[in-house]
Amino acid sequence: MRRCLIFFSTGAVTGLFLSNVIDHLHSQRSSRLERNPYLNFIKYGLPSSQNLEYYRQYITSIDYARRIPSWVGYSLSRDYLSKCSFQPKSTRTRSEFQSQCQMVPTEFQATNEDYYDSGWSRGHMAPAGDHKYGSQEAMNETFILSANIVPQDLDNNGNYWQRIEYFTRNLAKQFDFVHVITGPLFIPNEQKSLDADDDFPIKQMTYNVIGENEVHVPTHLFKCVLVENQNQRDMGVGCFVIPNEPIDRNRLLTDFAVSLANVERRTGLHLFHKKIRVDEVPFLCDKTSCELLGKDAMSHELIEQIEYARRVRRCKTMEQLQKLWNEVESKRYATIDKWLTSAYAKRLAELDTQKLKHDD
Amino acid sequence: MRRCLIFFSTGAVTGLFLSNVIDHLHSQRSSRLERNPYLNFIKYGLPSSQNLEYYRQYITSIDYARRIPSWVGYSLSRDYLSKCSFQPKSTRTRSEFQSQCQMVPTEFQATNEDYYDSGWSRGHMAPAGDHKYGSQEAMNETFILSANIVPQDLDNNGNYWQRIEYFTRNLAKQFDFVHVITGPLFIPNEQKSLDADDDFPIKQMTYNVIGENEVHVPTHLFKCVLVENQNQRDMGVGCFVIPNEPIDRNRLLTDFAVSLANVERRTGLHLFHKKIRVDEVPFLCDKTSCELLGKDAMSHELIEQIEYARRVRRCKTMEQLQKLWNEVESKRYATIDKWLTSAYAKRLAELDTQKLKHDD
Repeated sequence: MRRCLIFFSTGAVTGLFLSNVIDHLHSQRSSRLERNPYLNFIKYGLPSSQNLEYYRQYITSIDYARRIPSWVGYSLSRDYLSKCSFQPKSTRTRSEFQSQCQMVPTEFQATNEDYYDSGWSRGHMAPAGDHKYGSQEAMNETFILSANIVPQDLDNNGNYWQRIEYFTRNLAKQFDFVHVITGPLFIPNEQKSLDADDDFPIKQMTYNVIGENEVHVPTHLFKCVLVENQNQRDMGVGCFVIPNEPIDRNRLLTDFAVSLANVERRTGLHLFHKKIRVDEVPFLCDKTSCELLGKDAMSHELIEQIEYARRVRRCKTMEQLQKLWNEVESKRYATIDKWLTSAYAKRLAELDTQKLKHDD
Repeated sequence: MRRCLIFFSTGAVTGLFLSNVIDHLHSQRSSRLERNPYLNFIKYGLPSSQNLEYYRQYITSIDYARRIPSWVGYSLSRDYLSKCSFQPKSTRTRSEFQSQCQMVPTEFQATNEDYYDSGWSRGHMAPAGDHKYGSQEAMNETFILSANIVPQDLDNNGNYWQRIEYFTRNLAKQFDFVHVITGPLFIPNEQKSLDADDDFPIKQMTYNVIGENEVHVPTHLFKCVLVENQNQRDMGVGCFVIPNEPIDRNRLLTDFAVSLANVERRTGLHLFHKKIRVDEVPFLCDKTSCELLGKDAMSHELIEQIEYARRVRRCKTMEQLQKLWNEVESKRYATIDKWLTSAYAKRLAELDTQKLKHDD
């Protein structure tokens, strides 16, 4: 009898063990994620669970109604940065903006046509430049519209925001890990009521939506950065809220610093809320200089090229188009993400079709 | 050896069985939900999984950033309606608007103070009147601000929208089940560009946010209704989008009918998307008359009472307040959700405190 009991127990334990193995297989996906250094930030918790997409080097939560991400999160490491400087495995000239998301139903996706001629650039949340090391696929994934792109002011995108991205990336020279959560914000204007009898200010939310899919143009962008050395020593946290407009190059980064709680209230998200009391982590700019480098790093040329692409699309006649294109070529402007030449080719074809119709 | 194998197998099966029991306990909650007739709509799938809250008679998905629900879903049945007419178990005069949500962190909650003096009423998404039968607790739960309430135009709330709610409820006289998903919408204005050179219209999103917590005021409200008789026969679906403003009483409900796909694109939600091809379900107004009853059901008095409450709060002196209150009393206005008398009592106390300070 005793033997039987032993065998029974062994069997039971095996059964429970089998059940655990099944559970384990289920959870393998999440443990794979934990081993991905770019997704290291998830140990501090995901800000929300709405429409998550897991890419090679970032995680995004997509706002289906607005056709943009609510937030995008990824991590950099000192190790990554050193590899990246010497042996980048990908280049952004081989990437193209694409609307195809893994899981997002077509009717909730932004398209290149929405951005086309809108006056707004396609701003990366996880910067392409932070994903040079890994694979071309990983970089390509940062160009997926609804997942990682928001309509961003041209000058802001090419200048001040890019300097903030340089700054963030360079933090990985000083700290072992840099965790970044970044995304769009919608902040209302405060207005005095027109009603003289009324003491209460009225706040109004005002922003543009672009294209047929009505992609929402954020009023601001936020970037929250958590840095740490091994074993969670020497941590620092900084949150910055930048208006989605040209920013004077002399403005200090600290001018835009806000508390993490401020960003949380605005976004309805909880950031870095697991395992640490983030309100007890020192301010990033007390741990390191928050001085932005490269004031003049971004040339006026990039802005001008994008402006040319816009003008190309507005040409009403072949003559106008050809004249403008001569000007572009005389300036020896290279293509930016193939935008400029493809805009030219497209307009050329359109005007050609119109001409044919007139000739008929 | 054979005996051992038998015992081993029995043990293994028991272990697997135990594991299943644990799973079963885990899933009990969801099967409880399925048995709740008010939550019957979930058999057609939940529109999203963001910040869900399960109440006795409705399910809500809360938009933490906007401090309002994204959608609220519930079901009515013919059976429910007949019980309700004869033996209501609760009354709205015993309910009070409350900010306390089960799970919503305080920083993401709307409060009564946000609505106070905002000029916007607190509009139910799952109407209190649809939850008379059940318990007082169930009705009280429809008064939870972030979960079921949005800022709604006073006249819209008290007139046209209420007539749509009557209409929806009465559908349960004709059909066995009525599934309702309702919520706020944010729709941009189309504007012609000011730039004469520009052929592309610019769309702008404009709406108010109220109170310290910046509760977002929707531009429109939507209500999608799926009706069915037993065994999914005789189904019908109707979606209506109503501007959040006074609506002329002569407007037909069909004037506001839109496709389900239209609401889905606006909200980023998929509605009634499981088990049926909802695009093949006939239009509700082809199955039943969509004529709204009770054109004059809502008196001007309700609107006037709420306006009185607003004026009470703005009184600058005791004399003003007393004069106004005499007017209120002369009209024999009863309280609406205790709003009017509590506003009076509060303002009385405030002016009294001010008077004491002046006397010091």
